[in-house]
Amino acid sequence: MSKRVIVLGAAGSIGRQTLDVIRERAASDEKLELVGFSVHSNCETLRLLKHEFPHSRGAWTGEPSLAPEGASWAGPEALARLLSETEADIVVNGIAGAAGLSASILVLQRSMHLALANKESVVMGYRLLKKLADEQRCNIIPVDSEHAGLFQLTQRIGRAIVSELTITASGGPFRSLPIDQLSSVTPDDACKHPVWKMGRKISIDSATMANKGLELIEAARLFDMPQTRIRVLIHPQSYVHAMVRTLDGALYAQISKPDMRLPIHMALSWPKTTASPFGFADLAGKNLEFYEPQKERYPLLWIARQALDEGEAQCIVYNAANEVAVEHFEKGSIRFTQIASVVARTLERNWNLPVESFEDILHIDSMARTIAANNAERST
Amino acid sequence: MSKRVIVLGAAGSIGRQTLDVIRERAASDEKLELVGFSVHSNCETLRLLKHEFPHSRGAWTGEPSLAPEGASWAGPEALARLLSETEADIVVNGIAGAAGLSASILVLQRSMHLALANKESVVMGYRLLKKLADEQRCNIIPVDSEHAGLFQLTQRIGRAIVSELTITASGGPFRSLPIDQLSSVTPDDACKHPVWKMGRKISIDSATMANKGLELIEAARLFDMPQTRIRVLIHPQSYVHAMVRTLDGALYAQISKPDMRLPIHMALSWPKTTASPFGFADLAGKNLEFYEPQKERYPLLWIARQALDEGEAQCIVYNAANEVAVEHFEKGSIRFTQIASVVARTLERNWNLPVESFEDILHIDSMARTIAANNAERST
Repeated sequence: MSKRVIVLGAAGSIGRQTLDVIRERAASDEKLELVGFSVHSNCETLRLLKHEFPHSRGAWTGEPSLAPEGASWAGPEALARLLSETEADIVVNGIAGAAGLSASILVLQRSMHLALANKESVVMGYRLLKKLADEQRCNIIPVDSEHAGLFQLTQRIGRAIVSELTITASGGPFRSLPIDQLSSVTPDDACKHPVWKMGRKISIDSATMANKGLELIEAARLFDMPQTRIRVLIHPQSYVHAMVRTLDGALYAQISKPDMRLPIHMALSWPKTTASPFGFADLAGKNLEFYEPQKERYPLLWIARQALDEGEAQCIVYNAANEVAVEHFEKGSIRFTQIASVVARTLERNWNLPVESFEDILHIDSMARTIAANNAERST
Repeated sequence: MSKRVIVLGAAGSIGRQTLDVIRERAASDEKLELVGFSVHSNCETLRLLKHEFPHSRGAWTGEPSLAPEGASWAGPEALARLLSETEADIVVNGIAGAAGLSASILVLQRSMHLALANKESVVMGYRLLKKLADEQRCNIIPVDSEHAGLFQLTQRIGRAIVSELTITASGGPFRSLPIDQLSSVTPDDACKHPVWKMGRKISIDSATMANKGLELIEAARLFDMPQTRIRVLIHPQSYVHAMVRTLDGALYAQISKPDMRLPIHMALSWPKTTASPFGFADLAGKNLEFYEPQKERYPLLWIARQALDEGEAQCIVYNAANEVAVEHFEKGSIRFTQIASVVARTLERNWNLPVESFEDILHIDSMARTIAANNAERST
């Protein structure tokens, strides 16, 4: 039986790789059927997908007047209409940034399983999403490699006997750079990621490890674990994505090739495990290194731990302030090392605000962006 | 509630470490109670254990006239009487060599769960043991680190979606020795194992990788997997003990400190997972290497694969011939590299004999020993 899939953010990195998985599985017993997709502002992707998957429906979420012919819906309501008027079994949310959170809410409100690549959904609003998912009896299946690994491990081993989580980090392009040179690296330097080919924002987050900070927050939320029991280890080979420790002291690791299509494939198969067309991990000839990250090199990781200790609002602020700081770094108005100081300074004020609704979240997010922008401008 | 434990081979390496686990767990919620034990011919151990665990009963399986005061039974029937007259929940079989097989049969006949460290039980008679265990609704829980790892992984992940097993090997003390020097190594050289402290026979088997050949046969039997789907990788750090590959291409690894007490602890807790007093594995600062073993260095691994392909009798012959060859190497009558040639030559004749009973097994074992001894003597 085939599974009907909607892909949100079809022109992005996760979206394109999800389409690859759908294509690769076309001839298998575990067929996936693309029934709908969204793009923000990529005409070419919309046209090509409508041609390749003529029965699918495409939502254009950007400026309606720019929507190409073939868009089933366009404009601010396009996403909601795609999700309310298209029957699907699972939705892959590959939308970047805070916009992904409202998309996640819509998916769950429509009682569809959510394969979630949008970090902000978890970092900003996991408690609300989880409540909704439980009410609608839907699963939230993480798609990025670390949390997909933790998901597989905890589901198989049983969360009750898991005493510690580990996520790995490549360490980014400045892993071995003398620390005193970090203040002079450029955005282009930061985007030369050693393992994964990714967008610029996430590449910079990988260089600062803000990305791992966000993943730490995600892991704490998804697997209900205090940050003191979540470790981050640098593992430059990116073969081991995640580990769990069981009560008896053993570690269980999930290992696969660094290929995002694998966790997407797994999420789209869950709860089944199905043959993957993307090859096998093989450790023969491999040399896997693991070491602790240094606080001086990756302060944003420690700031994330602090945000987790302080509360939900602080995690929203961490994400928002980092986005603003990275924008300022990209346009050259602050240095690489100032990204962390902007985030830290933004977190300094009292953020003990209620986080009870989607509106609360957006309010905190927007306040944090304003304050972070001020801090970034004062830093220049 | 405490679990009642019988330890067979209490003076051996597995026995002593099992007693350590029992001692360490004395104050925990998951208490273990030593209700019985056997020793072959170690007076001191029997005396000390009777003193330390006054309510336990000790069987002396060696020469009855040498049995010390305090032995509850002595002589050829001692083991059977220990097992039939002592109520226990689980029996750890740490008896070395082929004698362990009849002990395993007795345990299962008495409807007790079997924590199995005796390789010969699996290599020689697993089909018979498994049939008995199923009839008596008992579990056979492997205790050596590789199979304990595979057991935990396959139980947790589900055998049905496991497509490949990997066991790791330290590579032994001659891992990096130029191959042309192997023919002149001594038994003492072979016993300098880089990671595990073990008896002489198993140390030599580790140097030739006959040990890994036996473990390959065990893995094939315990997890019902053809040898073509069982890999052996050299992993000098001995942190990763076992891995399974799932259908989707991911690998799951079990990692723990190289400490035999951990798999014993796990076997004695199964099906529960309980806190271990033996510390935690930590990969920080570790560098884990994996590589394929070379056929020229470890021919006995390939001979084991061939035996598995040929049949059950050939696996019994492999074990018996190797034991005989190692004895000849120990007494200096053959060279290190001749261990493999004695085993290979012994396997050359037609061994397609029935393996339907314990008697069949012993018959093949004894024939193989005679032929192997002849082969060894002709080699000198």
